Amino acid sequence: MNPPLPVFSERMKRQLAFLIEIDKLKSVLRRSYLVHEDRRENSAEHSWHLAMLTLVLSEYANEAVDMNCVIRMLLVHDLVEIDAGDTSCYDDEGLRDKVERERHAADRLFGLLPPDQGRAFRLLWEEFEAGQSPEAKFARAVDRMMPILHEYLTRGRTWQAHGIDRRQVVAKNAIIEEGAQDLWHVVESVIEEAVARGYLSEKQATLQGE
Amino acid sequence: MNPPLPVFSERMKRQLAFLIEIDKLKSVLRRSYLVHEDRRENSAEHSWHLAMLTLVLSEYANEAVDMNCVIRMLLVHDLVEIDAGDTSCYDDEGLRDKVERERHAADRLFGLLPPDQGRAFRLLWEEFEAGQSPEAKFARAVDRMMPILHEYLTRGRTWQAHGIDRRQVVAKNAIIEEGAQDLWHVVESVIEEAVARGYLSEKQATLQGE
Repeated sequence: MNPPLPVFSERMKRQLAFLIEIDKLKSVLRRSYLVHEDRRENSAEHSWHLAMLTLVLSEYANEAVDMNCVIRMLLVHDLVEIDAGDTSCYDDEGLRDKVERERHAADRLFGLLPPDQGRAFRLLWEEFEAGQSPEAKFARAVDRMMPILHEYLTRGRTWQAHGIDRRQVVAKNAIIEEGAQDLWHVVESVIEEAVARGYLSEKQATLQGE
Repeated sequence: MNPPLPVFSERMKRQLAFLIEIDKLKSVLRRSYLVHEDRRENSAEHSWHLAMLTLVLSEYANEAVDMNCVIRMLLVHDLVEIDAGDTSCYDDEGLRDKVERERHAADRLFGLLPPDQGRAFRLLWEEFEAGQSPEAKFARAVDRMMPILHEYLTRGRTWQAHGIDRRQVVAKNAIIEEGAQDLWHVVESVIEEAVARGYLSEKQATLQGE
């Protein structure tokens, strides 16, 4: 148990309670490993990295995007994992109740904030999840791109551990194209190279031949 | 050694090289511990957390600030630690050559990017370091505020390990007031409470009485 803070205004109290609660995102582990260190990535550092991708790669968005809005969306997009956990895009079982789990998490977490800020955060998160605005499409593109680079650079470690094959990677990540065609071309080349190098198998070993 | 990427345009190659290199910020450990887990914080997740503080607390800035600029500055401000390491504000030895070490780091890291982007990142970092603009003052305020909350919530663990006393904490962090008076008042209350609870000593034990 952490000690209680001194008493501040009701608004400040809520803001600090939220900011302290979200320290927990640093303990939510993703499946992928760091590029330069042998440990799994957490969702807080992942969110930082995606904001950096946006700063560097926003020129490749299919449509003009408000980069600041994309960054805010990406900073906030994984907060629900504090309660709902990280659900891999290949985890079809987990994906079944993901929406429900994450909605409850959003209610609780954004509910910690003063109502005006809670609403603003909720809207950002919902915009990301809906994936309809140019900003959300681009945010989702970089959110899908970076894990593939991580996988490639760590020689397909997680792909192999979870028996993920080329078709699954293409099927789950083709939405990158909706946000940034140029980035999808990069990802396609990386996938091809991963197959050529044996990091990613052409077909799932456990599936019957088609 | 990570495998090489497939070949892209020169510009994309540089952008990806930078984005992959900065994965190393996730391995730069700070002195402070997480609030909810028994491990030290790294500089990437710290940068994410400060961007979140900005989203929530920018209303307390002394002057009107461009929140998006503050966020960009905070995302970038610790990158130089990849080469130069994290230097605690209480580490007077380390602070002596910090500027020199970080300048070399900035040359190398921002030099990985295409020149136009390298320049833009460099300017953001220099603005933060100079601490003169309203945005830089506010960014530096949240960068100082969060570690004090971390210390308080972990019962002064790092303060005690490094023999830091109240006067040092006040002296090194009073610059928070330049960016956000209201946040400085919060920090002052937290420091008082930390002393009252015995997390922070009134006077450094090794100093002669004054």
